Amino acid sequence: MDNKKIKVGIVGGTGYTGVELLRLLALHPQVELAAITSRGDAGLPVADMFPSLRGLVNLVFTDPATANLNACDVVFFATPHGVAMSQTPALLAAGVKVIDLAADFRLQDVAIFEKWYKMPHSCADILKGAVYGIPELYREQIKHAKVIGNPGCYPTTVLLGLVPLLEQGLIDFSVPIIADSKSGVSGAGRKAEVATLFAEASDNMKAYGVAGHRHHPEIHAQLTQLAKTNLEFIFVPHLVPMIRGMLSTIYVKLSAKANSLDLQALFEKRYANEQFVDVLPAGTLPETRSVRGANQLRIALHKQADTGYLTIVVVQDNLVKGAAGQAVQNMNIMFGFAENTGLQVVPLLP
Amino acid sequence: MDNKKIKVGIVGGTGYTGVELLRLLALHPQVELAAITSRGDAGLPVADMFPSLRGLVNLVFTDPATANLNACDVVFFATPHGVAMSQTPALLAAGVKVIDLAADFRLQDVAIFEKWYKMPHSCADILKGAVYGIPELYREQIKHAKVIGNPGCYPTTVLLGLVPLLEQGLIDFSVPIIADSKSGVSGAGRKAEVATLFAEASDNMKAYGVAGHRHHPEIHAQLTQLAKTNLEFIFVPHLVPMIRGMLSTIYVKLSAKANSLDLQALFEKRYANEQFVDVLPAGTLPETRSVRGANQLRIALHKQADTGYLTIVVVQDNLVKGAAGQAVQNMNIMFGFAENTGLQVVPLLP
Amino acid sequence: MDNKKIKVGIVGGTGYTGVELLRLLALHPQVELAAITSRGDAGLPVADMFPSLRGLVNLVFTDPATANLNACDVVFFATPHGVAMSQTPALLAAGVKVIDLAADFRLQDVAIFEKWYKMPHSCADILKGAVYGIPELYREQIKHAKVIGNPGCYPTTVLLGLVPLLEQGLIDFSVPIIADSKSGVSGAGRKAEVATLFAEASDNMKAYGVAGHRHHPEIHAQLTQLAKTNLEFIFVPHLVPMIRGMLSTIYVKLSAKANSLDLQALFEKRYANEQFVDVLPAGTLPETRSVRGANQLRIALHKQADTGYLTIVVVQDNLVKGAAGQAVQNMNIMFGFAENTGLQVVPLLP
Amino acid sequence: MDNKKIKVGIVGGTGYTGVELLRLLALHPQVELAAITSRGDAGLPVADMFPSLRGLVNLVFTDPATANLNACDVVFFATPHGVAMSQTPALLAAGVKVIDLAADFRLQDVAIFEKWYKMPHSCADILKGAVYGIPELYREQIKHAKVIGNPGCYPTTVLLGLVPLLEQGLIDFSVPIIADSKSGVSGAGRKAEVATLFAEASDNMKAYGVAGHRHHPEIHAQLTQLAKTNLEFIFVPHLVPMIRGMLSTIYVKLSAKANSLDLQALFEKRYANEQFVDVLPAGTLPETRSVRGANQLRIALHKQADTGYLTIVVVQDNLVKGAAGQAVQNMNIMFGFAENTGLQVVPLLP
Repeated sequence: MDNKKIKVGIVGGTGYTGVELLRLLALHPQVELAAITSRGDAGLPVADMFPSLRGLVNLVFTDPATANLNACDVVFFATPHGVAMSQTPALLAAGVKVIDLAADFRLQDVAIFEKWYKMPHSCADILKGAVYGIPELYREQIKHAKVIGNPGCYPTTVLLGLVPLLEQGLIDFSVPIIADSKSGVSGAGRKAEVATLFAEASDNMKAYGVAGHRHHPEIHAQLTQLAKTNLEFIFVPHLVPMIRGMLSTIYVKLSAKANSLDLQALFEKRYANEQFVDVLPAGTLPETRSVRGANQLRIALHKQADTGYLTIVVVQDNLVKGAAGQAVQNMNIMFGFAENTGLQVVPLLP
Repeated sequence: MDNKKIKVGIVGGTGYTGVELLRLLALHPQVELAAITSRGDAGLPVADMFPSLRGLVNLVFTDPATANLNACDVVFFATPHGVAMSQTPALLAAGVKVIDLAADFRLQDVAIFEKWYKMPHSCADILKGAVYGIPELYREQIKHAKVIGNPGCYPTTVLLGLVPLLEQGLIDFSVPIIADSKSGVSGAGRKAEVATLFAEASDNMKAYGVAGHRHHPEIHAQLTQLAKTNLEFIFVPHLVPMIRGMLSTIYVKLSAKANSLDLQALFEKRYANEQFVDVLPAGTLPETRSVRGANQLRIALHKQADTGYLTIVVVQDNLVKGAAGQAVQNMNIMFGFAENTGLQVVPLLP
Repeated sequence: MDNKKIKVGIVGGTGYTGVELLRLLALHPQVELAAITSRGDAGLPVADMFPSLRGLVNLVFTDPATANLNACDVVFFATPHGVAMSQTPALLAAGVKVIDLAADFRLQDVAIFEKWYKMPHSCADILKGAVYGIPELYREQIKHAKVIGNPGCYPTTVLLGLVPLLEQGLIDFSVPIIADSKSGVSGAGRKAEVATLFAEASDNMKAYGVAGHRHHPEIHAQLTQLAKTNLEFIFVPHLVPMIRGMLSTIYVKLSAKANSLDLQALFEKRYANEQFVDVLPAGTLPETRSVRGANQLRIALHKQADTGYLTIVVVQDNLVKGAAGQAVQNMNIMFGFAENTGLQVVPLLP
Repeated sequence: MDNKKIKVGIVGGTGYTGVELLRLLALHPQVELAAITSRGDAGLPVADMFPSLRGLVNLVFTDPATANLNACDVVFFATPHGVAMSQTPALLAAGVKVIDLAADFRLQDVAIFEKWYKMPHSCADILKGAVYGIPELYREQIKHAKVIGNPGCYPTTVLLGLVPLLEQGLIDFSVPIIADSKSGVSGAGRKAEVATLFAEASDNMKAYGVAGHRHHPEIHAQLTQLAKTNLEFIFVPHLVPMIRGMLSTIYVKLSAKANSLDLQALFEKRYANEQFVDVLPAGTLPETRSVRGANQLRIALHKQADTGYLTIVVVQDNLVKGAAGQAVQNMNIMFGFAENTGLQVVPLLP
């Protein structure tokens, strides 16, 4: 183990992706937590807001205006959309790498970004050099990236569920790909809102964003790039009464070529060297709790007899492989650490 | 209001559909609860097992062998599959009507029943005269039925979500109809099983039955009959950590004819006189809690831009419109009571 | 049944006690819902905010400034503390009765009110004539009351759990009475707050208000009045991850006199004619779900061997017997309706 | 870090304490998991039952009859009461240490054990040398112990909450100590039972065991020993709808001597060197989720003004500090490892 530690800053540490970064980085052997900012809670010890970190994180929230982020090696943005792009140029100039957990660097097409996020993109040139941070797809680029657009939670499940088929050209694009996705409530963030109160969201579920969810263009852009062709994609997210956990059920029509192949073997081979992607044995199905708290994604396949369709079921913890865990995985790759450093957490079951 | 009361028997009153029948019938002004049976709990006052019924239900569980069900006007079977068909011939001979909440009288094709339920069907002749108990589809037949096969919970959502399209021939059957359904845990019944323990099912979700769920043939048979053509149907149920509630997200390709029609208006017209089916305003989506405890089903429609697909979202309480409530609705129709007698329950929100 | 209907107004209909009043009053055969106000949501149909009421409540929220509350027979205040007392004088002058679900008319001692609620009491004279609305204690006064201070949720459980002992002088006051109470999250109201978000309150519990909860002086005042002596009272409330439900575990030292008495029989006799208070059989314990959605309170007693202490366990639905249901019960008494009118709801189990 | 690994066996690995031991030991750097037994599931890979352990635990359940436990350095019993004492003599003879997570070695008084557990104690001599495994109380004895009776979950909270007062003689025993405790549902174990089904235990709570819970004599024995006097103790456990988590609210009357002391400082000093016991700052209260998944116990104190009573609120994760985590802590002490080896897990929040 290399004992040299990098200095890490977190902008926006009071939301769920922020505290999740803290959970994973608190014991990371090659990280020194140097600064964590919060406009509203400057001066407050982090462990006063999150008592789970008592004795583990001794930082105090600092005002973004006074935090010396330029002295960091890498800065994570766990902020609303738009914050990272406003600060990234200065950080890059100071030699600091950036990992944005919001959407500022996810969509290469500026026009699409601006349509869905209702704001101009202030650094299109930096965006061009940014890497979409799914290591299982873009590991080589991540090694040399200065800016990472950390993927959305839903996109991580849908893309990793489809990559083996897309790479081998096994999908019939004459019909849409359909992703019916379900998320735990932490995906909505730590904002005070009536709709996500316990007494509203518990013992209840609903679809939302049917008319258009921001992860649709993100997934569509990646799918198109991987498929190297136009395709149609239907995406319906749902809110489910659990704290953490995400499950996507994906319906694709297989191409003629696919029908003669052993798809189970294909998926297993594709992910054989990926420690954070687990292809389940044929005939089994994953539960979200099997990855609770861990940077793990599990996939199961089921052919729908007679219809030519394949159903792919994917689970992850939306805050880990779907957000902070994947961000740490990206950091590890960027700095040449073993990819699982700080990520060896056994899922919490029950 | 007619003050003459009918005598009602319940076979198998210790499960969730049994106690739900009791909840609805306890205050039903035209029902006298005459007998409730349980092999294992004979002698136990019902209210000792279900304290929610203290002061409301004074019955004692009786052994099925000694219960005088022949003196009833109607008997509900809230039992495992196979029980109802063994007792129905004798009840019919005694002039007693039967409403089975299990699957014995749901599938007209005996071969399909026997394939999925792994038991011979013992009264195929009675099955022929049985009516599939969705009032919104078969109200006239229910009026004169002696035996009702009360529908499965999932089928009720999928069928009522598709009926207006099927009746008007608005679905393109060149691709499969896909139903991605989600159910609360009470749907698994009140059996002692590890998989549905609180510490297993809470803060967790999963797909199940992907390889084949018994509601698939039930839905498929009804869809085929309504469509008057062969069609392909993909069905993936999921278990969600809520007590009650069911949500089906249905994906269909619209026929060319459909694209020029106002589907919202079509659905509203189809269900205008149905007090237990509610078509939500365009642009809105239902939550399961909006029907908690009530015999209500709500539907919302969303066209998926550019794809030619329609997404239909349907919610119900799996134990009410998905089971016991619909059974009482059928009983009301069979005996000429106002259809909402005993079913005027406001959903419990929050 | 008398078919003459009274006109009912609700001030502040967007919180949980407001929607709960609507649930109970929507089908109340002697109530015409005349007006429901909301400053923030004036103009919005009630059923758009609460889809559970679609088809049952056709009212639109009106601005408090324009609502014609003077034309009502009774007005419920489901508002923050302080609102009811500002409007009550005018309503009384117009001959309208008032039932306040907040604290404005609960504490007879103005100084104590002002200490705990941090506001001056604007109508101490009206307060003097107000009745504390626990029918099982003050039914005669309620019959003739013009203003009801509807009790807090916790006080209802603690008081009804202790009344039989207090009335018979069976408590040894040389040690404090201790009430360890647990509440579902809906008790915190429908305000957008981080602490009651699903992802914060789920799979979690805590004590709160140990340093001083507003229900402490309310309970203490009633206890003192019933005991006709000074006494000490310790109260620790807890927040539990359930939507509805409240359970109080009360620890009292019995007086010497009590030890020779059959306390179970005493409690049963005291509440024999109370349809909304249920004394459970000796040796059993209540669950909160046994009263979910119903205006019911259940009590169990257990002597702690050798210690001279009695443990009393009380459950209710905090929104029903602990708030809106008790308010409707009070209304029924004030207007001479059968006390259970509109309150015949079977608890929702499971 | 010492690279020598000890061989560890687990008897009864299919319950919640079993899988929790696996979660903590899977990454323990000084442990080699040598054997895990299950009568019913022999032959099944552990990771097939608990997919959270895929890739982390490669063991297969073996039949207790054939498992070579004698080759282990230490064996954990995560079994029903009575199993450990039947196998411990042979293991000790083979030089294997034993940590029992059931009650076989918790109660030094054989008569009390036999009264509460309804079975004879088969090795009273070994029991005499067994150590009650709360390191913060008995660390020195644990170092040299061959058999550990790992404490019950409730006792750990009550005892650690009272130790500083007991050691200093600050409790007035003229009144009973009262512990009102609340547990998540995993405390009931992974047995198929109706009462702990999701649809029964969710959105619901209850007291239980009021007439007598097995942890009462265990706590009482320890309290008496620490107090060096007879005392009365009232204990009421409650079941709360959360997977993990335990909160005890303890009510004690302070002695005259206590009133002049700074109890907050006293507690802080007592636990200053205990990394797994955290005394919260004055004026704050703990949440159970602040320790979710971690071997941590947090304590807060609140004086009840005027009454002379102190309220102590204690939280832990019932499966970790309340069971498997404390067992691993004991193992670390027994084998001279750093006490936190394998226990550096950050609590999972949210």
